[in-house]
Amino acid sequence: MYSLLDLVLIDLYECDHETLLDAEMIKEGMLTAAGLMGAEVVANCFHTFKPWGVSGTVTIAESHLAVHTWPEYNFAAVTFETCGQGMDHRKAYRHLVEFFGSKNPKITLQKRGFMDAPQGELAYKQVVG
Amino acid sequence: MYSLLDLVLIDLYECDHETLLDAEMIKEGMLTAAGLMGAEVVANCFHTFKPWGVSGTVTIAESHLAVHTWPEYNFAAVTFETCGQGMDHRKAYRHLVEFFGSKNPKITLQKRGFMDAPQGELAYKQVVG
Repeated sequence: MYSLLDLVLIDLYECDHETLLDAEMIKEGMLTAAGLMGAEVVANCFHTFKPWGVSGTVTIAESHLAVHTWPEYNFAAVTFETCGQGMDHRKAYRHLVEFFGSKNPKITLQKRGFMDAPQGELAYKQVVG
Repeated sequence: MYSLLDLVLIDLYECDHETLLDAEMIKEGMLTAAGLMGAEVVANCFHTFKPWGVSGTVTIAESHLAVHTWPEYNFAAVTFETCGQGMDHRKAYRHLVEFFGSKNPKITLQKRGFMDAPQGELAYKQVVG
């Protein structure tokens, strides 16, 4: 199958509670994940909610990463959407499992955007404008 | 099942080519979608790549929306991640299908973050910090 976009869903259960509260720390963790997978970071946007909870997105040349935390449930949902080839999702995933201290992580991979063109033609790297 | 987060994947095939190129226009389309679903917009981040292609994220109180376009394939991938109840995903979806002029749209809904708590307790609205 020839696809344009990889969608990685990482559900992190039983995380370290304190980590889930700290937007600055989470931003660093996500930027590190982006680097580890080989992505080129373009921008980021992190926000802390009341009474708690952090949401963040990292725009990359290869699409984006996102994270949302639920401190009251020790849960964080991380999403990678990446195009192109050679992204090391596993490396980034391992880092985030450790970073969030998740004792029960889950990861799935889906493909989106199926085209009638050879995979080699579909996978190219855009230049950050 | 009691879940924290809804994941809506909207794959828009056979879109209007010109629309896929214009970051400002796409931002407006996505902000409108956020409003139509009943979300509260916190921030947004849109970027145009070279030679073409737009990526954007909209942070909402209920998590985030994202869009990535492939003008060369007339394809756009839209993602909603929302928590809480009462989000009108369908309304936002219909708007975006029309906005992008997609002749072949596809939508799926997944749930993430399963907790041992009654759904009513899980669904609450955070306040934008």
